[in-house]
Amino acid sequence: MLRHVATRLGLTLLLSLPPMLAQAAGEVTEFYLDNGMQVVVIADDRTPAVTHMVWYRVGAADEPPGLSGIAHFVEHLMFKATDDVASGEFSRVVEANGGSDNAFVSWDYTAFFQRVAADRLGLMMQMEADRMRDLVFDPVEVDTERSVILEERAQRTESSAGALFNEQMRAALFLNHPYRIPVIGWRHEMERLSADHARAFYDTWYHPNNAILIVAGAVSPDDVRALAQTHYGAIPASDRLPNRARPTEPPHIADRRVHLADARVANPYVSIQMLAPVREPGDQAEAAALVYLAELLGGSGQTSLMARRLQIEEERSLYAAAFYDPTGVDPSGFSLINVPVPGLSLEEAEADIWRMIDSLLADGIDADHFARIRFQIEAGKIYEEDNTQSLARSWGMDLASGLSVADIQGWPDVLAAVTPDDVMTAARRLFSDPATVTGFLLRPEPTEVSQ
Amino acid sequence: MLRHVATRLGLTLLLSLPPMLAQAAGEVTEFYLDNGMQVVVIADDRTPAVTHMVWYRVGAADEPPGLSGIAHFVEHLMFKATDDVASGEFSRVVEANGGSDNAFVSWDYTAFFQRVAADRLGLMMQMEADRMRDLVFDPVEVDTERSVILEERAQRTESSAGALFNEQMRAALFLNHPYRIPVIGWRHEMERLSADHARAFYDTWYHPNNAILIVAGAVSPDDVRALAQTHYGAIPASDRLPNRARPTEPPHIADRRVHLADARVANPYVSIQMLAPVREPGDQAEAAALVYLAELLGGSGQTSLMARRLQIEEERSLYAAAFYDPTGVDPSGFSLINVPVPGLSLEEAEADIWRMIDSLLADGIDADHFARIRFQIEAGKIYEEDNTQSLARSWGMDLASGLSVADIQGWPDVLAAVTPDDVMTAARRLFSDPATVTGFLLRPEPTEVSQ
Repeated sequence: MLRHVATRLGLTLLLSLPPMLAQAAGEVTEFYLDNGMQVVVIADDRTPAVTHMVWYRVGAADEPPGLSGIAHFVEHLMFKATDDVASGEFSRVVEANGGSDNAFVSWDYTAFFQRVAADRLGLMMQMEADRMRDLVFDPVEVDTERSVILEERAQRTESSAGALFNEQMRAALFLNHPYRIPVIGWRHEMERLSADHARAFYDTWYHPNNAILIVAGAVSPDDVRALAQTHYGAIPASDRLPNRARPTEPPHIADRRVHLADARVANPYVSIQMLAPVREPGDQAEAAALVYLAELLGGSGQTSLMARRLQIEEERSLYAAAFYDPTGVDPSGFSLINVPVPGLSLEEAEADIWRMIDSLLADGIDADHFARIRFQIEAGKIYEEDNTQSLARSWGMDLASGLSVADIQGWPDVLAAVTPDDVMTAARRLFSDPATVTGFLLRPEPTEVSQ
Repeated sequence: MLRHVATRLGLTLLLSLPPMLAQAAGEVTEFYLDNGMQVVVIADDRTPAVTHMVWYRVGAADEPPGLSGIAHFVEHLMFKATDDVASGEFSRVVEANGGSDNAFVSWDYTAFFQRVAADRLGLMMQMEADRMRDLVFDPVEVDTERSVILEERAQRTESSAGALFNEQMRAALFLNHPYRIPVIGWRHEMERLSADHARAFYDTWYHPNNAILIVAGAVSPDDVRALAQTHYGAIPASDRLPNRARPTEPPHIADRRVHLADARVANPYVSIQMLAPVREPGDQAEAAALVYLAELLGGSGQTSLMARRLQIEEERSLYAAAFYDPTGVDPSGFSLINVPVPGLSLEEAEADIWRMIDSLLADGIDADHFARIRFQIEAGKIYEEDNTQSLARSWGMDLASGLSVADIQGWPDVLAAVTPDDVMTAARRLFSDPATVTGFLLRPEPTEVSQ
């Protein structure tokens, strides 16, 4: 409750909150069913609703070569018929019980969740357990759903120059790792995805010993254990679960550049990306420093180095930002973008990004700025914990990325312990990478009539 | 025999040879053993030696993700112990019988060959059949051989800025297809290759129904059939041979650039590459036109457009050339390189390549030049056929790439039928590709002492 009060009182109060309180997010209980299914219960008595999530440790980076999009396709097909439940019935039952449901997939995980009244938890488990192993993959439904995902690609990716650009940048950043491949899939491969492909992927990965059950809300761990044992405990473990090791990157020894010209581009921009480490089990310090680095250089708001200098003081940028996601199974990317004001070239915008980086490396970190960033980062964790669903989602992402409960509970302390020196060390290491990917998203040159 | 006379009389005589004669290369007989092994016999009575080759339809592009280099590694291990033959014994026996042997691997095939006196053919088959299924993969030998391939990578790739550059260019050209990955393997993956990996790859692919036996020399098809039946016919077919379909490329919509700076670079150069079609079964015309295009633009010798204009007339290049290999399982690359004279920048060298392409597209093809190229291409085929071993190797590459005997025998006619219009059409299509890869191989900038 104090958290709510603090928020209303103004965020400065939080600066003095002890770290212990900042990370308190309801009691967390972890256990495993006999079949290897991991269960995490997050107590939260503030509402009578529960969030029920099942996370599979499989995503687009685990797809067989040539079948890009199959992880996302199977996620869609999970809402089709099982031996017991008709196609589309799953969501209708959730809705009829006053709940909501959804699913999402990334390179590292596939997750299904429902938010319902606490007394419907058993029903959710019953249905979720049913579709873990009993999907029927009707060929006609598979054909229909393939059209749906192709349309999704058309709408989300192909209709957007920026989305296509991101896709091309990833393909250039990763020489070997499947993070190179879009989660939605390459269109020409999506078009060939069959019921057999979907079933094979499902049969490989959808098993209780590859799943994490997260229940957050007004329930006791004992009740969750009993219900989970009833519904999920009966499903046998797979003894053929693949090793999840993906191909890793060779040294990046060459700079790469990507130029995408698209008539739909309103404001051309430049993006610079490089490989970056992520949180490793038991070793989260460098990722924590990179979280600060991204915020200091180009975080949200107007106070970052890039925004303040390029947008406000020099008026050379419409938008300048840095992005880093600390959570993933494998090393991922750190990216910076700069949208220059009209009249400035992308070459100048590119040089401006490096000028900001060099400025940080040369001048170091302003102590006040660092204190503000630390406060924002701690406050961000608290806001996240304030919403049961986003808290459960954060736990699921972390667990599915291979982190332990101890890693997750220790992360706020690791973040709180970051010093300006740590950030400078991480920055020097990151930006000493001799091989980056620089992307220009721009409008096509006017066509010449003849050569 | 006429071919030898013609060569000595001067090559112009060949211009009037009928295509029928130019493609006559000894009688070719094709048949299959009951276990599915393809056999091709190329009669050649000129020497008492025979070339004995076994080609497997597997190469680096068929490797499991994360195990780059395994195809090449298994090729090396094929010279180690089987249940019957000691490690290294294979080559010693060949040598003791007055023969020579070797092996090679590419993205699309792995081949083993020996050249011996005709009466040793049975012995070669006996030993080659033995190692098709009976390798023992001794862990100690596997460890030793891993050091050998790592040293090979050090010597052939890592000691050469140009080889590293080629590796990076391929990784940039192919977004999705495993042609992206070096045949020798990424070092960090080679280091992990184990006896189990090698055995699994071998057990997947090394079977008679995935092999092509080629015997060229003074032998009758009936004798080859009898010997092959004795030695190879006893090996059962695999009923678990994988489909060889590899991931294919999405549309190339973004230009990519690769900059590799290496202190060992003597003469910086630029390379421009783009996807190009290859010979397809029953459809070899476009690939044939591209063979002409590469020769016209930048073939060997001083008569190509790039060499004549850039090297001789304008003295802007030390070397300028174009490369295209028409044979492969999947579409591959067309590449152009330009090594500018000292004082010219790589940007200027890049513009010079495009100036030559634009010149060809605008001015068309000189008839005399085209006639010379046609003559060179036909003469090249004839030279190849004049050497039993290179002829057998050419047949093996073509068959392992999925072409039929009819395709191979028809290829000289397809080449002979190419017109200047065909070349211009192919050129317009190739160079209208909006997304190319441009690489700069250059020396590092002098290091600044401070920022």
